[in-house]
Amino acid sequence: MSTDTLTPIDALSAIVGAAHVLTGDATDSHARDWAGEHQGTPLAVVRPGSTKEVSEVLKWANRTGTAIVPRGGGTGLTGATAAGGAVLLSMERMRAIREIRPEARVAVVEAGAILSTIHDAVAEHDLIFPLFFGARGSAMLGGALSTNAGGSNVLRYGNTRDLCLGIEAVLPDGQIVNLMSQLHKDNSGYNLRQLLVGAEGTLGVITAAVLRLYPRPRAYATAMVAARDVSAALRLLNRLKTESGGAVEAFEYMPGSYVAAHMARFPEARAPFDAPHDVNILIELGATAPRDAIPAEDGTLPIATLLETALADAFEAGEILDAVVAQSDSQRMEMWARREASAEVCLLREPLVHNDVAVPLDRMQELLDEIAAIIARLDPGAQDISVAHLGDGNLHFAVWPENPDPALHHTIHMAVEEAVVALGGSFSAEHGIGTEKLPEMQAFKDPAALAAMRAIKQALDPKGILNPGKLIPAG
Amino acid sequence: MSTDTLTPIDALSAIVGAAHVLTGDATDSHARDWAGEHQGTPLAVVRPGSTKEVSEVLKWANRTGTAIVPRGGGTGLTGATAAGGAVLLSMERMRAIREIRPEARVAVVEAGAILSTIHDAVAEHDLIFPLFFGARGSAMLGGALSTNAGGSNVLRYGNTRDLCLGIEAVLPDGQIVNLMSQLHKDNSGYNLRQLLVGAEGTLGVITAAVLRLYPRPRAYATAMVAARDVSAALRLLNRLKTESGGAVEAFEYMPGSYVAAHMARFPEARAPFDAPHDVNILIELGATAPRDAIPAEDGTLPIATLLETALADAFEAGEILDAVVAQSDSQRMEMWARREASAEVCLLREPLVHNDVAVPLDRMQELLDEIAAIIARLDPGAQDISVAHLGDGNLHFAVWPENPDPALHHTIHMAVEEAVVALGGSFSAEHGIGTEKLPEMQAFKDPAALAAMRAIKQALDPKGILNPGKLIPAG
Repeated sequence: MSTDTLTPIDALSAIVGAAHVLTGDATDSHARDWAGEHQGTPLAVVRPGSTKEVSEVLKWANRTGTAIVPRGGGTGLTGATAAGGAVLLSMERMRAIREIRPEARVAVVEAGAILSTIHDAVAEHDLIFPLFFGARGSAMLGGALSTNAGGSNVLRYGNTRDLCLGIEAVLPDGQIVNLMSQLHKDNSGYNLRQLLVGAEGTLGVITAAVLRLYPRPRAYATAMVAARDVSAALRLLNRLKTESGGAVEAFEYMPGSYVAAHMARFPEARAPFDAPHDVNILIELGATAPRDAIPAEDGTLPIATLLETALADAFEAGEILDAVVAQSDSQRMEMWARREASAEVCLLREPLVHNDVAVPLDRMQELLDEIAAIIARLDPGAQDISVAHLGDGNLHFAVWPENPDPALHHTIHMAVEEAVVALGGSFSAEHGIGTEKLPEMQAFKDPAALAAMRAIKQALDPKGILNPGKLIPAG
Repeated sequence: MSTDTLTPIDALSAIVGAAHVLTGDATDSHARDWAGEHQGTPLAVVRPGSTKEVSEVLKWANRTGTAIVPRGGGTGLTGATAAGGAVLLSMERMRAIREIRPEARVAVVEAGAILSTIHDAVAEHDLIFPLFFGARGSAMLGGALSTNAGGSNVLRYGNTRDLCLGIEAVLPDGQIVNLMSQLHKDNSGYNLRQLLVGAEGTLGVITAAVLRLYPRPRAYATAMVAARDVSAALRLLNRLKTESGGAVEAFEYMPGSYVAAHMARFPEARAPFDAPHDVNILIELGATAPRDAIPAEDGTLPIATLLETALADAFEAGEILDAVVAQSDSQRMEMWARREASAEVCLLREPLVHNDVAVPLDRMQELLDEIAAIIARLDPGAQDISVAHLGDGNLHFAVWPENPDPALHHTIHMAVEEAVVALGGSFSAEHGIGTEKLPEMQAFKDPAALAAMRAIKQALDPKGILNPGKLIPAG
């Protein structure tokens, strides 16, 4: 009997088992994203237990013309998993860590594994999977790959696509594609892996990946620094990169207004410095080499000495105004907690005007100056709670407007975006497009690139069943 | 007047100027690859001077259904620029280095620039573009990008695709696509850049790129090491990676038989050691951080001390049998000359049975053992002149067979390839597919991946005018 004569629910139940098909109110938690925003009621939530089952679901969807929306941990920020009327394909059951090969420094992991679970598993081998961001306790690998997630350590280790050596995916027509390479060189045809990574589930469902692991730094040197301005901070970054031979793991910017908002949200939190400063930077160096990580005879840690020396030089050069080096792991955690609370701080008030943008590093000061001018012109009472992965040129612009007019909020958003594009930047640095940035894709993306994306989507998913309406504007 | 009523030569002359359209004998040098192998007589060689002209040529080719074969320096090894009957599009005139931004560590370079020209230009800023291989004096950037070239420093800096932040290309229909990003994060749609890199000119003609530059190491520590076996060498590699905190720039393997063949070809060359050894490794560490590169009070260089200490430990552990550390730049150059003469050594005798393959690092010893068994079984008198980018798991298998039977040579070739694939390896590590490896693509590549490649090719080049018959088997 062809399953196509069955109702969708029965057909899906026949593939994954009735216990793994949810409908009605039972879909509620899957239909909400992390911020609690309801993203539309799906036809059903289906929870496959294997790559084969994913394949069967997609074949059925092709036969019946049913839209399928893949979903990981629901921590995306652009509406890429909104599934009103579609079948939501939750990867939560495919969470196995299939293999860890410490000698080869690779792990083979299924798409539904939660990032922090992967972190814990590889830590047992003294290795790290260096993809760290605030939502790592909920975000799943498949979502991180599909959005090419960034985070706080891109500076040293690259984006998710750089951490992925191989991939297994199901194409829209249900074919399973096995590109589970553990190789450092493989020039055998088009790079489908890099096409699927960052495609937001529109070209295939990623079911597993081979991940690149790194030795866990034996020691960290972490500091909060108040810089004179962002340009001065970037000079310090270059100095630290050179002096440490590439050991800078993080270089995160928080303006004074963000620090103040953080302390309002978490009254028990301590201020980073005795006096408030405008340009606050969280710096972290990671020492993997023994000569950086083994304490000297006087007990000092070489990597910490290196950081302190560089900071002293920067202080003398007038580039920085104050600095605190973490003296314990709990002090280090306190510094990170301040930065990682960004999403929670943003939720404190509504509305929020925000954007995830990137510019070349040497244009960041210009961008911040232009943003300050935009705010001063359009809504001088707005409170800036932006943070930035400064070392990547990646600003998470965020303001609480004083003026309640939604039209003005849109004007601010667009003005920032136009400034970014004019500086050679990207209107979507690391969060992706989803549904939220479709207008920007249409307005700013190179038209020939857009045409090529449409042609590729049409070629691989002629019936348009996989995450329709996401990433590519209707045009 | 439509150019389509003109002869091809007149039409092309109208676009690029008659002086830049070559025909007949004048196409000879373009029609030969570096080894002097004639690759078929092209209809014409056309030398565009701008991206606009490339676009016009492709538009004309689409209107008239003419095949176009893009060509750089002609140093490819797989026949990807064979152009019998087609128009050969030589990028040699588009060789401008448009911009070098030392602060941002990027260069904007046209596809026809020769690699060593780029090296020289960025050296003036104390920076490197770390794509080094023997043919760098002839190979052009566009070819390196189109084949995702590897080379001797992939271990530290990655393949060509990792060195490319942005790209400008002309799609098969003549549309110019501008993805000249200078960003470290940009998640705005499918990664067309990574699709075009490594596509061997079948999906578009790369006309320019934004390249990632790195600080020039202030000092090198270079050594020739005789290891007990390849497994022992790989343990030394891991030790060096850890001790140096990622400063290993090269880890190149030469069997004793290669060293002997090299000395036969270059009688003035010195032997690496007093006695011959089976497993010879060229190791290079590069020090960028001052603490590694500034001589100590006793005049010793920290990076050299680090290497010598690690080698002494490996010697005590029985992993290595002998070692010579370069004491001068000329000694260093001598070590590199031996390794980089590989292509010339291979040309010394005919026929040559060869292959460019990769396996996971921890399977390399197994692969070499299997190859030795294959040779012993099929042609025990064959002389092995393989070399390997050992740190990448990339073997350039090469033997001079004793038995002259071409059928046997094919059998050896296939036996090695099957061993590679059985070990989870790739039948094409860094040289690509071209025409030579089409049978392997058909035999070994994942069928769903092949189907997706065909669909993408058809979508972007429906008339099949761009480098037809390359990379994707006819199927």
